[in-house]
Amino acid sequence: MSSDIKAKIMRQVAPDLALVERALEENLAPNLDLVREIASHLLFSGGKRLRPLLMIHSARICGYETGFEILFSIIFEYLHAATLLHDDVVDEATLRRGKQAAHTKWSAPKVVLTGDFLLARALAIAAKTCEPRVISVIAHITQAMSQGEIDQLEQKGRTDLSEAEYLKIIEQKTAVLIQGACQSGAIISGASEEREKALASYGYHLGMAFQMADDLLDYTATAEELGKNPGADMREGKLTLPLIHSLAKAGDSDRKWMVGVMADPVFDSTVFKNLKEKLTALGGIAYTQSQANDHVTKAKASLGIFEDSDSKALLQMIADYSIERKV
Amino acid sequence: MSSDIKAKIMRQVAPDLALVERALEENLAPNLDLVREIASHLLFSGGKRLRPLLMIHSARICGYETGFEILFSIIFEYLHAATLLHDDVVDEATLRRGKQAAHTKWSAPKVVLTGDFLLARALAIAAKTCEPRVISVIAHITQAMSQGEIDQLEQKGRTDLSEAEYLKIIEQKTAVLIQGACQSGAIISGASEEREKALASYGYHLGMAFQMADDLLDYTATAEELGKNPGADMREGKLTLPLIHSLAKAGDSDRKWMVGVMADPVFDSTVFKNLKEKLTALGGIAYTQSQANDHVTKAKASLGIFEDSDSKALLQMIADYSIERKV
Repeated sequence: MSSDIKAKIMRQVAPDLALVERALEENLAPNLDLVREIASHLLFSGGKRLRPLLMIHSARICGYETGFEILFSIIFEYLHAATLLHDDVVDEATLRRGKQAAHTKWSAPKVVLTGDFLLARALAIAAKTCEPRVISVIAHITQAMSQGEIDQLEQKGRTDLSEAEYLKIIEQKTAVLIQGACQSGAIISGASEEREKALASYGYHLGMAFQMADDLLDYTATAEELGKNPGADMREGKLTLPLIHSLAKAGDSDRKWMVGVMADPVFDSTVFKNLKEKLTALGGIAYTQSQANDHVTKAKASLGIFEDSDSKALLQMIADYSIERKV
Repeated sequence: MSSDIKAKIMRQVAPDLALVERALEENLAPNLDLVREIASHLLFSGGKRLRPLLMIHSARICGYETGFEILFSIIFEYLHAATLLHDDVVDEATLRRGKQAAHTKWSAPKVVLTGDFLLARALAIAAKTCEPRVISVIAHITQAMSQGEIDQLEQKGRTDLSEAEYLKIIEQKTAVLIQGACQSGAIISGASEEREKALASYGYHLGMAFQMADDLLDYTATAEELGKNPGADMREGKLTLPLIHSLAKAGDSDRKWMVGVMADPVFDSTVFKNLKEKLTALGGIAYTQSQANDHVTKAKASLGIFEDSDSKALLQMIADYSIERKV
């Protein structure tokens, strides 16, 4: 089913995607070749352009279709790329989308500054919307994401992270940006408060589902599918829901074993296989799947107030796909 | 004379300064204590609040005095602090304003993310101006500063940097932000294009003079006055105007000696004293002073179109003070 939805989504978005790609290239406009090189390394490495597509169709579901939604949508891809560049430096990640992370090719300072540049490009385009509330949304996103990352750094290595703490972190690091893209689509359309809230709610739940699916894939996908080694979160000392839930359900000896695995991040593939089996047996995998499913259901329910349209159907398919994807 | 101007400026700005300090504290509003701690380390370490004062009086010289100019002015202090945090990480500087640089107390990633947070706070307040052009100005500033820093990194260690290249770098790293603060004062006042251009020109020339004065102080001030060791720029491989001009005027043997000093950054105080004498003898100090003076003259001339007022007198005094200050 998963590949069916993907094919359907891709057919519907292909023409817009081509325009988004062109806009991303044309609006980058750095003065320095080096900035283009560093920014392009990440920006044109096969991203799904989920955030632009969400903004475009959040605008269109509200009846906005001036063509400007393409330009405005790239705000959220530049913003996304800026945060990925800063996060990769923060996390000292070595791989991103199957390629070397930027800061392993260029110095960390240059990567940080290129992130700043991309944020500035997002802002320059946001100013063109002439909607101060789009700026407020961007400010809110940047505030949440920077604090969320610091929070996650502070929590690193903690083996007693609660589910509530986890939910706060993924809201800040993922859901707020996706929510903001959807909400901004409503704002540029001059949509009613009810519609804006509905799209913000859709984006929030989609973002939560999306991150939970990511956290699951870190345990269940192959290195090839992920473009990086599975188990990366745990190696970086990041507890995610499959593990948090399993720890909560585990008896003393299972818990002790899992905490031991976390404390020794250079575990081999047999240990990792055993860990996955443990997460399955203790219900962490199934629980995370069901929580992600709940968010998808809520995301789709949020669209209930909108009349049927191609954009509505697409947003619903994207919600389904968010948890069925393999990458 | 310098301390006279300073006393006069301080008397005039004291009431606003107190309000600016309060606004800076009240609007920081982080969720995490750690973010407040890192941000406060720099933000409340005795900055001159030059940029807020410039915005306040650029608004008032245009007749704007609603009280909101205080709130809006802190946009530029948050933005300034954000860039200082990123720059200190980039430059690996160890001291700032006589205190440990933030990234030596906290990890570089946390400092980078706190910089992102401060930028977000600046944006949140900028959105409240409901002036998309203020956002464009901020975007332009961030773009210029990030690219300027990358450019400076690329040029590091080059002993043949030209005066034109130097001017481009200081425009991007300093003048654009000061210019933006002044221009935004005009924008929130709804001033005419002529007045906005005049204030942008004032800010540009003030910024250029200010940076040249800084670059001079790096050779002429004491460690106590600077709050860091003099000669820091050269130790970091950054060529500034006193040296660039002296190199251009030097004969072969002087040039060879200076290039040698630059290549060996752990020079002692005798070498540094000899270098200063060389820069004086070759005219690099005097030339930089005269160029800074020219910018001060142009900054003040830009204000010619405004009728006399307290704010105009203050902006003129600030221009004079920018090159007479000892710190």
